[in-house]
This record gives sequence, C-alpha cells and structure tokens, in this order.
Amino acid sequence: MQQSKLFYKANKNKSANAESVSHDLLVRAGYVDQLMAGVYSFLPLGFRVLKNIEQIIRKNMEEIGGQEILMPSLSPKENWVKTGRWDSVDVLFKLKGSGDKEYGLGLSHEEVVAPLAKKIVFSYRDLPFYVFQIQNKFRDELRAKSGILRTREFLMKDLYSFHANQGDLDKYYEICAKAYKNIFKETGIKVYRTLASGGSFSKYSDEFQMLTNAGEDLIYICKKCSIAINKEIKGENPTCPKCGNTEFDEKKSVEVGNIFKLGTKFSTPFDLKFTDRDGHDKPVLMGCYGIGLGRLMGAIVEASHDDRGIIWPKSVAPFKVHLIHLGGPKVKTSADKIYKTLHGEGVEVLWDDRENKTAGEKFAESDLLGIPLRLVVSEKTLEKNSVELKERSKDAVKLIKIKEILKHV
Amino acid sequence: MQQSKLFYKANKNKSANAESVSHDLLVRAGYVDQLMAGVYSFLPLGFRVLKNIEQIIRKNMEEIGGQEILMPSLSPKENWVKTGRWDSVDVLFKLKGSGDKEYGLGLSHEEVVAPLAKKIVFSYRDLPFYVFQIQNKFRDELRAKSGILRTREFLMKDLYSFHANQGDLDKYYEICAKAYKNIFKETGIKVYRTLASGGSFSKYSDEFQMLTNAGEDLIYICKKCSIAINKEIKGENPTCPKCGNTEFDEKKSVEVGNIFKLGTKFSTPFDLKFTDRDGHDKPVLMGCYGIGLGRLMGAIVEASHDDRGIIWPKSVAPFKVHLIHLGGPKVKTSADKIYKTLHGEGVEVLWDDRENKTAGEKFAESDLLGIPLRLVVSEKTLEKNSVELKERSKDAVKLIKIKEILKHV
Repeated sequence: MQQSKLFYKANKNKSANAESVSHDLLVRAGYVDQLMAGVYSFLPLGFRVLKNIEQIIRKNMEEIGGQEILMPSLSPKENWVKTGRWDSVDVLFKLKGSGDKEYGLGLSHEEVVAPLAKKIVFSYRDLPFYVFQIQNKFRDELRAKSGILRTREFLMKDLYSFHANQGDLDKYYEICAKAYKNIFKETGIKVYRTLASGGSFSKYSDEFQMLTNAGEDLIYICKKCSIAINKEIKGENPTCPKCGNTEFDEKKSVEVGNIFKLGTKFSTPFDLKFTDRDGHDKPVLMGCYGIGLGRLMGAIVEASHDDRGIIWPKSVAPFKVHLIHLGGPKVKTSADKIYKTLHGEGVEVLWDDRENKTAGEKFAESDLLGIPLRLVVSEKTLEKNSVELKERSKDAVKLIKIKEILKHV
Repeated sequence: MQQSKLFYKANKNKSANAESVSHDLLVRAGYVDQLMAGVYSFLPLGFRVLKNIEQIIRKNMEEIGGQEILMPSLSPKENWVKTGRWDSVDVLFKLKGSGDKEYGLGLSHEEVVAPLAKKIVFSYRDLPFYVFQIQNKFRDELRAKSGILRTREFLMKDLYSFHANQGDLDKYYEICAKAYKNIFKETGIKVYRTLASGGSFSKYSDEFQMLTNAGEDLIYICKKCSIAINKEIKGENPTCPKCGNTEFDEKKSVEVGNIFKLGTKFSTPFDLKFTDRDGHDKPVLMGCYGIGLGRLMGAIVEASHDDRGIIWPKSVAPFKVHLIHLGGPKVKTSADKIYKTLHGEGVEVLWDDRENKTAGEKFAESDLLGIPLRLVVSEKTLEKNSVELKERSKDAVKLIKIKEILKHV
C-alpha cells in the first residue's frame, strides 16, 4: 500500500481527552476514529489489525472443533423474557420496531443459540458440538471508557459448547482455556487466568486478565503459586484457593477473555434437551467462551508501546514492513522497485511515498504507526546498494544489501 | 468436514410456509435458520457460502482501489437529523439508550462515512479515495419477504467514493459498474443493468437486476437493445432511453446490487469540502455502491436449483466435493483415506460418514445440499479401485480411478 493513498490522518500531538494510552495512540495514528462516546470506526490500518486478530482467534477455535456461524443482532423480546434477562440486564439495548415489535440487540447470544440448538439436537449422538461467531455486540454502558477497551458496540468472538454431561463440559472447558492461552500468546500479551464469580451453576468462571493501569479490574495474584483471583470473589477467599497462601499482589488489569460454565441456565428456559443412551430426556449442558476483538487490540497497544508510538507484534501488525524513501526521483524509483518486489513476494508493505514530508516527519510517524520493520532508502544507502533496516522494538540500525532484503523480512 | 459432526439438520419435506424457492431450500438444507420474520442465522454451511461470496466481492473492490474499513451500526441521532433522514426514512430503526441518548441503527452509512471523511480530506491531493465495508445493516421492513431476499438485518457490502469533480465521479461510477458485472458473473448469475430513479442529484441510478419470479421488482427490457428500466421510471420513459424503441419485455426481478451518484447530497450537510488547486473551497462529490450478501446468496439459489435441491456454482459452494460411502467398515476405511487425501491437498470436502442413513437418503440429501461434485465409494467401485463421480448439474455418472481423483476435483 502506498501511504499517499492510505485513508487515514496521523496527528503527532497527544490528545488532551484520551482516556488511555491505547485510545490516544490508536486515534492519533489513524487506526480508529471515534464517532461518539463508546462507538468507533476501524480505519484501514485498524481494520487490518482486527483481521489479523480475527484470523488468530478463528484458527484456534477451528482447532478445537468450533464451527463458524453468524447469528443476528436482532432477537425477539420473548426470548429475553424467557431467560429473565429482559429485565435483569441493564445494559441490554431494547428496540421497538414497526407493528410494536420489540427486540433485544444482542449483548451475547445465548437467547439465539439455545433455541437454535433445540432444532438440531435430539439425541446423545448429536452431542457434543461447538459453534462460534465473530459478530458485533451491543451494550448500553452508562459510561463507555478507556477508548476501545470498553465500548457500546464491539466485535466479539463468542463460542458456545453443548454437552451431554458434566465431565464432557469440564473437559472441553479446559481445552478452550488452553486455546485461549494460545491466542493471547500469539497476539503477544501476557495474561493471568483469573478466578471470577461463576453465577448460579458453577463456583467460579475464569477470566483472562492482562495487567495494565488502563484496566477497570482489580486482581489478586498469589505471591506463591501465581494464581489470580478477581476482586469480586476476594472477600470469600482470604487465602489462595490453590495453595492456601495469604499474600497477594494487588494489580489493575483488563479482562481480555472469559469462559463460563453455563450448565442448564439457558437450556432449561428453552427446553433444550436430548435423549440419552437409555432413552431418558436430559437437559443439555452449555458453556460459553468470549473474546472482544477491539478490546484485545487495545490491550496489545497498552502492553506494547513506547513514548513515540505503538510497537505491534508481528502477528497482528497491519503491515510487516514500513518502507521509507528520503530523496528525489532517483531514490523514489529505487524505492518503487523494492516496494514492487516485496509486494510481489507477498510481503505486506506500507510505502511512505509522500513527497511533502521531511525525513523527521516520516520517521516520527513510522514510530507512531508501529510497523515491526522499517526500511529506509536514501542516496547514501543506494551508494552501497543497500537499505537501512531497523526493528521498531529495537534501537540498532543496520545496512543490508538490496538484493538480500527478502532474507530479512 | 465429517457430516456426522456438521451443525445442521436437513429436512426432506417441502415447507408449507416457504416464501420462495430459495427460502425453502436454504432452510430445509440447513444453510440458514429463521429466528423470526426477516431475521436469520447462517449455519456452518450457509456461513461458508457467505464467506465465499464475501471474498469474491472483497477481491473485486480491492481491485478498483477500495480500502476496507468497519463502521459501527450505532450512530447518533444528530447525524440523521442533519441529513433529514431521521424523519424521512421510515425503515430506520431508532433506538433509545441510557441518558436518553438516541441512535439510528445503520441502514446505510452515509451519516457515518461523510463526517469521517471530513476529518481526513482537506485538499484536492486527498482525493479521490474509496472505502468499503462488509457490515450488518438494519431496516425495519413492514413486511419482511421471500426468505433471505428481504430481511430486517442483513450483511451488506457498501463502498463510498469521494471525488473532486463530476468527471472523476462519472469515471469511477463506470469502473464500479464493471466490477459489479464481474462479481455477479463470478457468482454465477445473469444480471441486467437497469436504469432506476436517481434522486435529486442525477437523473438515474443503476440497479443490477436478476430475473426471478421470487423478486419484488418489475423491470422492462428493451426488445431491441436489451437495456432494462425499472418500473418506477417507466412512466417517464415510454421509449427506450438508449435506442428509442417502444417494445419491452416485462419481467419480475430481484435487485442484487445498486450504484448511486450521491453528488453533494451528504457532503453538504456535513460540510465535507476540499481546497482545489486554486485555493478555493469546493464540496466533495460522493458515490455509493451496495450489494447485499444474503440476498445475493438467495438469488443464486433462485437461479440455480432443480426439483431435488440447490445446484451451487463452484465459486460459492460450501464444499467443492461431497464424498459419500455406502457399505460397511471396509468401505468406510477407504472413504476415510480418500477424505484425508483430499483434505490434505486443500480440497474442501464434506464426507457423509453417517452410519444410520440409507443410500437413498444420502443421495437425496446430497442433491438437496447441492455441492458441485459427488464422489461415491462402495464395495462395487472398490472392486475396480474406483469411485463414482457425478456433477450435481449433470446426469452422467462416471467411474474414475481412486489414484486419479485429484485430477478430477
């Protein structure tokens, strides 16, 4: 992509209103645009990061048997009334349409997936199965906060699992927890699996928390065994549930994923049951497993930046290489050749081909954008048939031969 | 994918309530599930078709310079009031949130993209550009109709173009029209470019209409030059606008895409302007270009089916090969080997590995599902180290050697 054509506008000045580092950097670097409080657009740069995150999540969900589907955001009031969530969940957006029809705007999809499963599951032979989607969610947050960390509309991966018995649910729950660990590792962040309240069905649920001062959660990390527990259950647990230790580190954090044993909470209201081997009807057991994609993107930036800008992990970076040329038409021609070679080899490269920018401006913006590898072509480097290579995360700069670029990127 | 694990349930009986052939077939074959009137889920089979359609559209939009973004569904009432559409568009879903905030649920995204562009476009150097998204739209249709052909919530590709002058808009409009022709050709349907009303700015817009009795539109095809015009403008055009002929074929059709010269209709309310080469401020000219993905999927089925079920064009089929085995463990082992070979070579194959189905049931369901190539393994074919190959769209069956399968698929 030629930067002169890229739909974005970078701003070198820190915003006075930014609610977090990631909010400031992602808006200033032109990754996202704030339409209103808690509602954002993803511009081409941000969209590319989102797609990379989506692909990492999709791959890991498919590896544990997840089948991708797409459920609607509109769902009938009746379904929400059945589960009691029409009145009990205050962040549910309620919508009135023509003919006085009332809808809930999906904040999660149990009210859709459970009645859907009822049309497909009859016998123990139909279990277990796992479906997931990557779909917008809506939550009427009283206060939207911290840029894209807590928004009113957000892209979420939600997987739902369906089981014949508790043992099977427990087993899959751990398989999913492992997949989550993979996902967060691949996206370059360190998370703590954190015990949180489990609702009526199971004692605990598990959250995946990343330490950051931009987060809204408070977790307690056991100084001995490193298990973490959420503040909301710290009262009942003065000692570590795993090792009995009583000393904890208190840390601010952001929840980037959570997994939950729903049990029969949603199968009962929708009469979702199956016939077991002995011919008896039993309720299906469910689990749900969520990751917010935008929030994860924000968390990655919270974890990986410096004073000058974002430092994207390669796995999610919008481009792998940022090519910059400094100088006149001759240098530009060489840069164009390098750009086309890289592009032709399938390397995702952004070329800063703008002519009205100084070297200083180009470098500053490159640091702000945070693409992992920077290649600089100038008259000086061309004298040695070379380009200058620098990793965004490091200080060292080295000269490499033009014909050897592909080995380095 | 093993069919025994696929999340779907097929129904061999025609539905009494189906609103169109595509509605009946897509629901019965387990591609989509109707949650309520005009609101559908896409099950794994349907989701795969949707993704294939999406990829064809994305590729064609990128080829004409489109940059992909993602805009939110929630947008502030103020923006809709500014353009007058808060009151004038009766299918706009209006939503009230906490703190008495009012939102429109995006039925198209001019109210978001125009103010977004205003933050990025300043000079003639910033023009032209083209952004697109593939995102849910919501329309409060009084009567949702014909299955997935007209729904209240639907996935749509919308591209917006931004220009410095009329000539540039006109040129890009035709480039986009050509890309649309490509898209519909690649998805296997025949469309008529159809003159329709153009709003205040231009005399006509263009629709892409596919002939089908399931459609809601009426178009008039000139018997001489094959240009088509929508009923809505037939009154003013008793003669063909192109060749002057007065004889037309009247046909029912469904609109699968439309393109529209918006001109300054949305740039004026949002004060979206640029400074030209001479330093004068001028309004930006806009175009918009839409395709509904679910509707296109329905249209493909309307165009391509027979009494027994769907006949997917290869380009959008959920799987390329439907592998069926008939017989005991020995045959199943051979089928398993073929399945793994195909899968390993990247061939998308659905294997009907179910044990409680008769040959007749498997064949009937294979026809219903409509996967382009059917491979049958049985004791009889194995005697000749072969499998039976049949194209869904043809009657002929032929034996091919197992070791030569890859050449045929």
